[in-house]
Amino acid sequence: MIDLWRKHFVLTESMLEMECTCLTPAAVLKTSGHVERFTDLMVRDPETGECFRADKLLEDAIDDLIASEPTMASEQREEHLRIQRQADAFSPEELDKLLLKYDCKAPSGQPYSQAFPFNLMFKTSIGPEGTSVGYLRPETAQGLFVNFRRLLDLNAGKMPFAAAQIGLGFRNEIAPRSGLLRVREFCMGEIEHFVNPDDKSHPNFKSVAAKELVLFGRDDQLGSGKTKTLSVGEAVSTGLVNNETLAYFMARTQLFMEKIGMDPTKLRFRQHLKTEMAHYACDCWDLEIKSSYGWVECVGHADRACYDLDVHGKATKTPMLATVKLDTPQDVEVAKLKFDRKALGKTFKKDQRVVSGALEALAENWEDFAKVASDLETEGKTVVDGFEITKDMVTWKKTSKKVHEIKFTPSVIEPSFGMGRVLYSLLEHSFYQRESDEQRCVMRFNPQVAPNKCAVLPISSGEEVNAMVSQPGCISLRMRTQTSQISWLWF
Amino acid sequence: MIDLWRKHFVLTESMLEMECTCLTPAAVLKTSGHVERFTDLMVRDPETGECFRADKLLEDAIDDLIASEPTMASEQREEHLRIQRQADAFSPEELDKLLLKYDCKAPSGQPYSQAFPFNLMFKTSIGPEGTSVGYLRPETAQGLFVNFRRLLDLNAGKMPFAAAQIGLGFRNEIAPRSGLLRVREFCMGEIEHFVNPDDKSHPNFKSVAAKELVLFGRDDQLGSGKTKTLSVGEAVSTGLVNNETLAYFMARTQLFMEKIGMDPTKLRFRQHLKTEMAHYACDCWDLEIKSSYGWVECVGHADRACYDLDVHGKATKTPMLATVKLDTPQDVEVAKLKFDRKALGKTFKKDQRVVSGALEALAENWEDFAKVASDLETEGKTVVDGFEITKDMVTWKKTSKKVHEIKFTPSVIEPSFGMGRVLYSLLEHSFYQRESDEQRCVMRFNPQVAPNKCAVLPISSGEEVNAMVSQPGCISLRMRTQTSQISWLWF
Repeated sequence: MIDLWRKHFVLTESMLEMECTCLTPAAVLKTSGHVERFTDLMVRDPETGECFRADKLLEDAIDDLIASEPTMASEQREEHLRIQRQADAFSPEELDKLLLKYDCKAPSGQPYSQAFPFNLMFKTSIGPEGTSVGYLRPETAQGLFVNFRRLLDLNAGKMPFAAAQIGLGFRNEIAPRSGLLRVREFCMGEIEHFVNPDDKSHPNFKSVAAKELVLFGRDDQLGSGKTKTLSVGEAVSTGLVNNETLAYFMARTQLFMEKIGMDPTKLRFRQHLKTEMAHYACDCWDLEIKSSYGWVECVGHADRACYDLDVHGKATKTPMLATVKLDTPQDVEVAKLKFDRKALGKTFKKDQRVVSGALEALAENWEDFAKVASDLETEGKTVVDGFEITKDMVTWKKTSKKVHEIKFTPSVIEPSFGMGRVLYSLLEHSFYQRESDEQRCVMRFNPQVAPNKCAVLPISSGEEVNAMVSQPGCISLRMRTQTSQISWLWF
Repeated sequence: MIDLWRKHFVLTESMLEMECTCLTPAAVLKTSGHVERFTDLMVRDPETGECFRADKLLEDAIDDLIASEPTMASEQREEHLRIQRQADAFSPEELDKLLLKYDCKAPSGQPYSQAFPFNLMFKTSIGPEGTSVGYLRPETAQGLFVNFRRLLDLNAGKMPFAAAQIGLGFRNEIAPRSGLLRVREFCMGEIEHFVNPDDKSHPNFKSVAAKELVLFGRDDQLGSGKTKTLSVGEAVSTGLVNNETLAYFMARTQLFMEKIGMDPTKLRFRQHLKTEMAHYACDCWDLEIKSSYGWVECVGHADRACYDLDVHGKATKTPMLATVKLDTPQDVEVAKLKFDRKALGKTFKKDQRVVSGALEALAENWEDFAKVASDLETEGKTVVDGFEITKDMVTWKKTSKKVHEIKFTPSVIEPSFGMGRVLYSLLEHSFYQRESDEQRCVMRFNPQVAPNKCAVLPISSGEEVNAMVSQPGCISLRMRTQTSQISWLWF
């Protein structure tokens, strides 16, 4: 399945592929916001100290309530289900209230403690001194972000482009359960597609525009509770899905699922609620797959905007920029600077290059430089990147310049696959019982993902077959001995 | 390269393959001895607190000494090199003395602190309560050992058999360095071959018996300092290599290295010194590959005896046994037991089945039961697995029984590949500079491991080629634009 994934996404679209480490220095995950915000809300049983995931308790309580009152009016039931669908988007205070409202009690019989955030990353210490903290990566994406400049170089500076990574992710789940669906160590396949934030079109969009998807938009989740079936083209033109690239990957994911043998009637894309999304994200759609555990999110599709590259660029003082050539050069207003190197050197010593560099960067666009200019004129000084600049250090002239390219921090559009969840769902979708006899269970795999291939050959004890079978080659094979050697089983 | 490894070992020899988790509960690694003994010796700079690996300091000091005295007598130099080769086999006290003798000083100018063991495993805590400790696995092998019974079942109970695993290992190295050679997170390929400890022959041994290997035996390391070139058959018949299966895998490793394009003159097998080996191991041979960093161990071949299965079996009270059918049934002396269930039940309550089970197990061989019998006869009581048994609970009769199969704890023979080290060495062995011009460097890969394949095609802007190129297929391809589109580059 992973092989097929690599072919369907990485090779077909000429993506770059990279393998980063699982152990990640704390600095990277502090910058990305994971150290502070990668949390689930947890409650404790005040008597035993046992911990529970607050949103799952709420979901279960609503299931129980609905099951216990079969005569409940459908409107009322819809209202409960609406709350259930938002379970992981509530604030701690809201959850506290709802747990009270639904009368959730801890196993000891007491009410739960207040909900509090619990960080889901595994922490360890790196090196012999024990002074540097590391985490096991909760997603593979950060490795690609911090290597963005290398990836861009490898792609000869061309935009847009994508980089993929297949590898392990780790989350210290409060309550692992449901087989492969909620585990603490799992295989992910992530693609980071880097794109100009002002142009999120996709060159191959036409090839999927007619493909129909089952979409469960934000408004429908809070309103009708019903899904819509739309072509990808319509979804983008009506504004339901934010942009072409995001929609393109949703369609490619749908095609992948159909290719490996998933039941298309059990697939839907659910949009994140505003309260569910990170503050920087533009739009997020989860592919949910239906199994005996209900609808389970298996693939995320997120437009993460410029957030990640921006924060890493700032934290490391290494701008993560891409350039596009303009078809026709544009005139832009810039400031032409002249430094008094002596004055700069006296004040900033070895930092003088940093200071002049920061000013040069601002000067590339008069709009950015205007405030510095007016501050220096009126106050005689200003602050840039924490350095106090005075009037004697620099003079400038407003002028115009022809530019042939523009620089920008790329936006990132990310499809992120939970391989274990996809695999588990596929096993369920491939399983059936024969109509005539429930005891006869079948796993019917699509040949492309079937783990074993077999051939039925005529019985033969001839030299030729024996020689072929005993010769160590590149095919692993086994003889089937149970049924008097009627057949050979190959795999 | 990993693909080829899988074909060469796993598929060709019909091994089982399994993927276990990196996060490992502390219990598993306590049982295996890693929590207590998986350590390197470390010294501190007493002034700065900085840490260093003691054996590496010694090795470097000897290198420096030899380099600084080019006129040193060859006998003396040999003596220093002998000490250097044993560097990682010394006790803390021996290392303390040697560091003094070679006048090793910390960067602050003071002598180092005493050497002390430092555990190389990354520790973390699993679950929300923070009470259960986990480690990142230092080797993949333990996952296969604890799953031995499942693997044996999957193999339909047949012995001998092998299981392989490709995955990440983690070691909190004191001083990571040398590119891919000493890192804290690395890809391993490990094979555990389970075999009857009384019969370590290998069915395919003949196919490799004539293969010649460069062997650096224990005696030669402490004596002549020279290697021997022997056929695998000779190595086993002279007793240099302990058994056929171990030698078989050494030969298969050699063949793999030659297949991927390693320079055969830069390969040698070095036997572990007695002081270097774990107390339970029978024999260990490292494949060392020569690169600009000297001889580096890249593949371990160890006969781990029954140690691992034994300790896990005892710790989990789940015997890890295999059975072989005997060609002719054998008579063995056993004890036939008769329990007084009332007396047992009164004393042991719900543990009575455990107690009677333990006695039954001993009774299967009179030799094992003899001590219990004599204790009960003379003392009236005895202790089995921590339970005190008295005379009234059981009576017995010595008798003989025909057995058709025997049970045993399998021995494990393990080839263990450090994939990163092999890859790095391969890069060095594949690199050369043209004789005519040192600036023209070439990476000459064996086609089987080459990352890019290319085809040179005639120039064409015809419809046919464009259609082929723009169609998303399973081949990732790139147009080469630098040289006026003279060629297409495929990969």
